[in-house]
Amino acid sequence: MSQAMTQEDKLGKLREIVKAVDICMLTTTDERGDLHSRPMSNNGDIEFDGDLWFFTYGSSHKVDEVGRVPKVNASFADTDAQQYASLTGRAEVVRDRAKIEELWKPQLRAWFPEGIETPDIALLKVTVERAEYWDSSQSIVAHAVSLISSLVAGKPAQLGENERIDLK
Amino acid sequence: MSQAMTQEDKLGKLREIVKAVDICMLTTTDERGDLHSRPMSNNGDIEFDGDLWFFTYGSSHKVDEVGRVPKVNASFADTDAQQYASLTGRAEVVRDRAKIEELWKPQLRAWFPEGIETPDIALLKVTVERAEYWDSSQSIVAHAVSLISSLVAGKPAQLGENERIDLK
Repeated sequence: MSQAMTQEDKLGKLREIVKAVDICMLTTTDERGDLHSRPMSNNGDIEFDGDLWFFTYGSSHKVDEVGRVPKVNASFADTDAQQYASLTGRAEVVRDRAKIEELWKPQLRAWFPEGIETPDIALLKVTVERAEYWDSSQSIVAHAVSLISSLVAGKPAQLGENERIDLK
Repeated sequence: MSQAMTQEDKLGKLREIVKAVDICMLTTTDERGDLHSRPMSNNGDIEFDGDLWFFTYGSSHKVDEVGRVPKVNASFADTDAQQYASLTGRAEVVRDRAKIEELWKPQLRAWFPEGIETPDIALLKVTVERAEYWDSSQSIVAHAVSLISSLVAGKPAQLGENERIDLK
C-alpha cells in the first residue's frame, strides 16, 4: 500500500471498482431491525462522485425501509478481480423529473414499460459519506486473508490495499 | 422460476452460491449506527447448513460491533455468474477450542501465525435466519433489471429466480 496516495488517487480507485462491478448489494434495515440486501445496478454510472443512483418504484419495500432508517450500505464485490468496496451513506427517494430524465437509459424500459412516464417511477439516491476499498494483486486466498488480517489487526493490509476515504 | 421448488431445493441452490462465491461482504452496524461492510472468507465452507463461520481476532472492531448490534447481513455476489444471495442473521463470537480446531486450515497460519495457539484467535459465527437469492441465465443487463423488477413489484422475478428462504 502506498502511503503517498492522495484523496484523488483513492477516489479514482474507488470509482474504478464501482464502475467495473456496477451491480452492488444494497443493505437496508427492515421494520424488525434486520439487515437485508439485494442486488442493484448503479445504472452504469461511470462518473461516481459520491452519490449512487438507482431506479426504483416509489412504493417499493426498500423505499419504505429507507424512509424509516436512511442509513444504508452499498457493497461492490468482484471476487475474480479481488476488488471490494464498502460505501456507507444515507438513502432518500428522489422524484425530480429532470434527474430522472438525465439518468434514464432506453434499456430500462423493460422494467419501466412506460419509460419516464411510468407511474411511481423514482430514484433512490445514496449520498455516500464514507467508503473503504480493498484491492489486491495477490491470489484469491492470499487476498481474502489479507483482508481479514488488515481488518482484524486494525492496520493496513500488508498483502493488498485497504484505503478508507471520507467523502464528506 | 419454478413454483415446485422444495425448501431443500432452495437451500441447495443457496448452498451452491455460498460455496461458489466464498468471499462475502459482511455488513455490521457501528457505534454511530452507520452500516459498513468488509470482505470475509467463509473459510471454504462447502456444507453451508445455515451458519457462517469466519476466523477473526476477539479484540477486533467488528467483534465490538456485533457485541452491541448482533444483527448482520452477509451478501454473496458473483456478477459474472449473475448469482446473488442475501443472508440475514445474528453474529456472535465463539471461542470454543474444539470448533476452532475443526474449522482450522493450514493456510490461515499466514494471518494467525501461531495457528490455533494464536492469542485472541476466535470465530465469528453468523446464525442465518433468512436468506434470499437471485439466479439468472439472462445477460447481465437483463438480470440486473429483472432483480429490480422483482423487488420493486413485490413479485417473483420473471427473468430469473428470486427465492426467499426461512432457515429458522
